[in-house]
Amino acid sequence: MRSSAMRDLMAVTARPEVISLAGGLPDTSTFPPQTFAAQMTRIAQESVAEALQYGPTEGFEETVDCILQVMGAEGMLPDPEDVIVTTGGQQAIDLIGKTLIDPGDAVICEAPTYPGAIPVFCSYQADVIQVECDAEGMRIEELEGVLEKLSAEGRRPKFVYSVPSFQNPAGVTMSLERRRRLVELARQRELLVVEDNPYGLLRFGGEALPPLYQLDGGDFVIYVGTFSKILSPGIRLGWAVAPPPVMEKVVLGKQASDLCTSTLTQYFVREYFAAGSWREYVESLVEIYRCRRDAMVDALRRHFPPQATWTEPEGGLFIWATLPDYIDTGDLLAKALRDDVAFVPGQAAYVDGRGRSSMRLNFSAVGEDEIREGIRRIGKVVAEQVELYGALTGERPAAPVQARDAEAAENVVPFRKTGEGGG
Amino acid sequence: MRSSAMRDLMAVTARPEVISLAGGLPDTSTFPPQTFAAQMTRIAQESVAEALQYGPTEGFEETVDCILQVMGAEGMLPDPEDVIVTTGGQQAIDLIGKTLIDPGDAVICEAPTYPGAIPVFCSYQADVIQVECDAEGMRIEELEGVLEKLSAEGRRPKFVYSVPSFQNPAGVTMSLERRRRLVELARQRELLVVEDNPYGLLRFGGEALPPLYQLDGGDFVIYVGTFSKILSPGIRLGWAVAPPPVMEKVVLGKQASDLCTSTLTQYFVREYFAAGSWREYVESLVEIYRCRRDAMVDALRRHFPPQATWTEPEGGLFIWATLPDYIDTGDLLAKALRDDVAFVPGQAAYVDGRGRSSMRLNFSAVGEDEIREGIRRIGKVVAEQVELYGALTGERPAAPVQARDAEAAENVVPFRKTGEGGG
Repeated sequence: MRSSAMRDLMAVTARPEVISLAGGLPDTSTFPPQTFAAQMTRIAQESVAEALQYGPTEGFEETVDCILQVMGAEGMLPDPEDVIVTTGGQQAIDLIGKTLIDPGDAVICEAPTYPGAIPVFCSYQADVIQVECDAEGMRIEELEGVLEKLSAEGRRPKFVYSVPSFQNPAGVTMSLERRRRLVELARQRELLVVEDNPYGLLRFGGEALPPLYQLDGGDFVIYVGTFSKILSPGIRLGWAVAPPPVMEKVVLGKQASDLCTSTLTQYFVREYFAAGSWREYVESLVEIYRCRRDAMVDALRRHFPPQATWTEPEGGLFIWATLPDYIDTGDLLAKALRDDVAFVPGQAAYVDGRGRSSMRLNFSAVGEDEIREGIRRIGKVVAEQVELYGALTGERPAAPVQARDAEAAENVVPFRKTGEGGG
Repeated sequence: MRSSAMRDLMAVTARPEVISLAGGLPDTSTFPPQTFAAQMTRIAQESVAEALQYGPTEGFEETVDCILQVMGAEGMLPDPEDVIVTTGGQQAIDLIGKTLIDPGDAVICEAPTYPGAIPVFCSYQADVIQVECDAEGMRIEELEGVLEKLSAEGRRPKFVYSVPSFQNPAGVTMSLERRRRLVELARQRELLVVEDNPYGLLRFGGEALPPLYQLDGGDFVIYVGTFSKILSPGIRLGWAVAPPPVMEKVVLGKQASDLCTSTLTQYFVREYFAAGSWREYVESLVEIYRCRRDAMVDALRRHFPPQATWTEPEGGLFIWATLPDYIDTGDLLAKALRDDVAFVPGQAAYVDGRGRSSMRLNFSAVGEDEIREGIRRIGKVVAEQVELYGALTGERPAAPVQARDAEAAENVVPFRKTGEGGG
């Protein structure tokens, strides 16, 4: 599924009767209207003229102060001079791509990877190479193999792109050991790593892990952050942190792309952080999303067939589910939409057509009841497919299929840590 | 002067003691804080969750309705399906460049042209060809010559980029006859024209002229508009209008660039337009800017040497002044900054080093007294240069220089309609 199809999907899911588990939407209905009103009132009283004016290309110092607070909450201490405010994290990815990628350059990312990163890398004509993830994130041995192979061809990848925490779309988190190895590898090989960390503060369980940027100290790791998942995506505020030689070009790219990031939304963030309770709001989101994840996992156990597997993320917004490999989730989506439920077919997360039997399920956008009902509806169309397959092949729909596909899934999509069929 | 130098300039001019005639800033201090407060209160009461959420890639229908009102005010009636909301007009230019330009493609623009367009076209490795402007805008005969020459080489330009009304930086407006010829030429040769029209509604005098888009009906003219100069640049809201085959790719580019335009700032515009007095505000800006233009022209007559020339725009934000050709405005700027006044050296508006003796002067950002004082200070450093030149060459500083440079200016920068030395 290419991104125009993704767009069509988002349009369909805007229909109010559709339960959409497709988007990556945080629940902005949890944001207190009185807080919004208070921020805007302060701007109205004190700084309308400034808030409506152009701002510096790099963003306001006050916005960078807020960014330092957010990064500080995960143990990072970047030099403020290395930070640029961008029009969402997406623009940070785009500007890094624009700055670094020449046509034909190898760019390595995870398999599956963030569906929104693929069109960026492809637009700069990168040769996108995907390295498998498992329950502990990107397989670093496989990455080393890819690097060796490229090296033998006289090639060096421009960068490795990773979402190490609560990955989009797989929901998995890179283990501490792998983080250390990746950063070590970057240093040994003078290899740039782009760490995209939109969800780091949305941890529901397990222990906090240091971001790659912290482990590396910012020498080889370029960092991408965003206010989208801890405050609001509608303000389009993100950032990149990069060493001066890269930053210089990123700033020029930013200027050509949109001159500067919205002053009004930067002022909003400034006032919001000045009010001093941004972390409390993030904590409230964590509570809400933990319950929704639990509801989704519970519903998957109840309504998905025994041969399905899925991840059980310790944070973030997404679960990645994998069905028997005779099910094409692109076809399944068409059927699911008839039952007014949507998800993102797995193929969107690959450049090479893999992921056909997987799906990305979002648990942040809608309430627990809708999640249960949505998974029930998807489970129903999955069950029909399983039954149809049984009827066509003469296999009994339960046990034999399970054995066959458990094996297939093991080979194809290796997220088996927590996914248990049943119910 | 390249854009990094431009950025440094903008940083220097942020010093409060500097009178900056450099930026292209509208006067947002004219926007009533109570209007801002009213809009934001309505959002706070009715739609915080929606305003903070992601929006559609193409922008909200309600924003497009506002855009149709703005374009309607200049006689244009685009199909709403052909409109995309962008992160400022700059992003519209960038997305059009991204969509249409392949490395080595010829892109034709005016000489001088909008300094912010050059890095965009260059970032996509266009071969930028500049066609001279005079007091009636781009010289269409010269454009035809360029097209013939390219055609003889088997090349077709990807598009012609023009700011036909109150051009940035020259302040000139393309005559009706040239507009008709350009649109005719586009049709005959199936040539795309990108019309960038940020200032169309800011007309202080003379008769309104139809935009190229209106004359062409949108077949070969791609349109770029913005709320920056009629409301606020800090909200980063612009748009592009393009026929479906182009728009499809622009939308994909938009999605990769920043997913969608800020929902919050779109909601602000929606509420603002719903309040119904956006045209009154534009009319108030027109009054203010007319007085400032008059003040600047008056100060130029008073303080610039007789051999200088300048344009007298009927609208917009900029005057283009040209000095004797032994004055390099890049060097002059360094001296002017010591006297706490800034302008944009003319070279920023060319790809080939031309414009060395010209400067762009903005009259929208500061009040009449500051304009007079700013021009007085620039006039002083210019006079010093003229005197120094006289001393070095043995020429008397007044009349002989005047004769020499009037001729030189005629050849180099042909804006002689209204520029009169004197005072």
